[in-house]
Amino acid sequence: MRFNKSYTVSKSAIIGDNVQIGRNSIIHDNVEIKSNTIICENCIIGEPNAQSYIDDGYINPKTYIGSNSLIRSGSIIYSGSMFGDYFTTGNMVSIRENSIFGKHCIVGTFSDVQGDVKFGDYCRLNSHVQIASKCMFGSFIFIYPMVVFTNDPLPPSNNLIGSTVNNFSQIAAGSIILPGISIGKHCLIGAKSLINKSVPDYEFHAGNPAVRIGKVNHIWSKEVKKPHYPWPYNFDRNLPWSRMGFDEWIETDEGKNYD
Amino acid sequence: MRFNKSYTVSKSAIIGDNVQIGRNSIIHDNVEIKSNTIICENCIIGEPNAQSYIDDGYINPKTYIGSNSLIRSGSIIYSGSMFGDYFTTGNMVSIRENSIFGKHCIVGTFSDVQGDVKFGDYCRLNSHVQIASKCMFGSFIFIYPMVVFTNDPLPPSNNLIGSTVNNFSQIAAGSIILPGISIGKHCLIGAKSLINKSVPDYEFHAGNPAVRIGKVNHIWSKEVKKPHYPWPYNFDRNLPWSRMGFDEWIETDEGKNYD
Amino acid sequence: MRFNKSYTVSKSAIIGDNVQIGRNSIIHDNVEIKSNTIICENCIIGEPNAQSYIDDGYINPKTYIGSNSLIRSGSIIYSGSMFGDYFTTGNMVSIRENSIFGKHCIVGTFSDVQGDVKFGDYCRLNSHVQIASKCMFGSFIFIYPMVVFTNDPLPPSNNLIGSTVNNFSQIAAGSIILPGISIGKHCLIGAKSLINKSVPDYEFHAGNPAVRIGKVNHIWSKEVKKPHYPWPYNFDRNLPWSRMGFDEWIETDEGKNYD
Repeated sequence: MRFNKSYTVSKSAIIGDNVQIGRNSIIHDNVEIKSNTIICENCIIGEPNAQSYIDDGYINPKTYIGSNSLIRSGSIIYSGSMFGDYFTTGNMVSIRENSIFGKHCIVGTFSDVQGDVKFGDYCRLNSHVQIASKCMFGSFIFIYPMVVFTNDPLPPSNNLIGSTVNNFSQIAAGSIILPGISIGKHCLIGAKSLINKSVPDYEFHAGNPAVRIGKVNHIWSKEVKKPHYPWPYNFDRNLPWSRMGFDEWIETDEGKNYD
Repeated sequence: MRFNKSYTVSKSAIIGDNVQIGRNSIIHDNVEIKSNTIICENCIIGEPNAQSYIDDGYINPKTYIGSNSLIRSGSIIYSGSMFGDYFTTGNMVSIRENSIFGKHCIVGTFSDVQGDVKFGDYCRLNSHVQIASKCMFGSFIFIYPMVVFTNDPLPPSNNLIGSTVNNFSQIAAGSIILPGISIGKHCLIGAKSLINKSVPDYEFHAGNPAVRIGKVNHIWSKEVKKPHYPWPYNFDRNLPWSRMGFDEWIETDEGKNYD
Repeated sequence: MRFNKSYTVSKSAIIGDNVQIGRNSIIHDNVEIKSNTIICENCIIGEPNAQSYIDDGYINPKTYIGSNSLIRSGSIIYSGSMFGDYFTTGNMVSIRENSIFGKHCIVGTFSDVQGDVKFGDYCRLNSHVQIASKCMFGSFIFIYPMVVFTNDPLPPSNNLIGSTVNNFSQIAAGSIILPGISIGKHCLIGAKSLINKSVPDYEFHAGNPAVRIGKVNHIWSKEVKKPHYPWPYNFDRNLPWSRMGFDEWIETDEGKNYD
């Protein structure tokens, strides 16, 4: 009984082949959903932004969801956002306008992306993550539960400054990133850290406030009896180097884009 | 295609002029919604409380939403709560029974207000905020993401004690306020603090556990080359002193209410 | 106007006597709901798991909700999970597949249970709690707001290790439990702690990182002028020893199960 016709789709929406839409879901004006994507139940795709309430001539900005995506139930995605192929959400995510995600990204249950943000490819946000506007992320960045990226150094102010995170960095659970921070590539932020200064490439910072603990390759894995970081040498589930190994992949035409 | 008739409104609800109600939304018994308010999609307004499940003669308490309000999609507001004019929510907020908000308040996405609380005017809760019952707030108080106000000093106990916060104070992201705390006016609580003792007027406290850092007027703004706090001298977006400045406004008949 | 017929129930669902189902709610295949249970509005019960999107012969695993339960509005419960009698949720909870809860458990608003977890009886999760998969809980365990149980010691890795918590322990607001931790019985974890080593029975640990503060029976209650912990001697609301006292109850046939 999963998918029937009890949903609502705007006449201006463009729905690809083999797209499935769950009960009670609403697809607003100017949404484009590519082939093989699944929209589960009670979702709202292309939610009109605040301008729609005051502007009689409002035209809903284009929303784009790539192919083979999975939007789980209860999720709300605003108009003006774009998602690459193989985008996945947990249940009840909220993604505001002008958010741009590359391919193969995941946004977890109860995560809140506040709009005007950019993510590269293969980023994964766990549950209860909050991303303030103006933050910029590279690719292969995983953000764990209850992490907050902020953007206002002196709240409240008009001087919002996002943070940036480079490829392959990992932000462990419960951390808060203060505004205007630059986190390098292949970094690790320990659980429950308050990050108030920038983090150079390949470094491990932790604590409240965070301090430099050392290089990430000093963190030992008992399972493999060698350093766990840089993690792409030890983890490849659903990642593009799973067949050839990270060293070989990073030299391919695809891999070079992320080096 | 935004608003059509595919919603449900109780016959006992009173709906003002020019109110718009989104698809799948449900307006329960004895809800009053004033003019020009917008209820987006999948909302539940006036959700009956726990008594309704056991009492055959249950009458839903009155729920009041002021004019020019905006309740974003997926929000659930229980019966017995009251909201002043220009009330705004993010998506998927949960506000339990007997919550009272003044005018121009905002409750952000995934915030959870547990009922029996009171907020003055112009309060702003960001996302993922949790307010335990019995807490009391003045006006112009902004609470940032993942802040928790608790109310049980020795969990679990029957001796719940809310905290109080006075006008113009700011609670930065990820802080936890232990029960029974009194936070003065124009205070600043730093990010990720654990507040276990009361905070006098105009003080800046931070840390886990929090300590007194100093007076708020020692916090310098590089942009304006003077102290940022008290913040009303440096921030006025959508605030009543935006035309005349804070010093002049606080002497007006309106401003004197909040001094 | 609370309950009418505007919901959807699979033909293969088994609905007990006097079950009430709210508007827009969806009951999927192979769900069994026992008598006197209330499913509020906009709920999804028995949400098919990820396999359903790729397997044409998918059969939805059995979902079981015990009698006298209350599933509040907007909640999403996946197929393959089981809940004992008197199960209660807040609004908008997300519970993934293969979660097992005993009787009289509560899962609060915006909490996220990630599946493959087990809870005993009378456990209470407050709001915004996140439980990673592979965690195991005894009975009478209360978990307060914004607590996270993690399961990946070296994120990202394939070596997920849940934590275990024994009967009667309390985890205060904002704490993070690192993977593979064992928390004994009658423990107290202070607010905003980072638990990175195991906690013996009857101990109070707190801090970031947490340290041993002492035995729980050193925590004094001003109200009753004696130690507050072990808490069952001082709190019995809706608990099975409320009539006879904890010492007598723990010697009964029922009580011995939890000693």
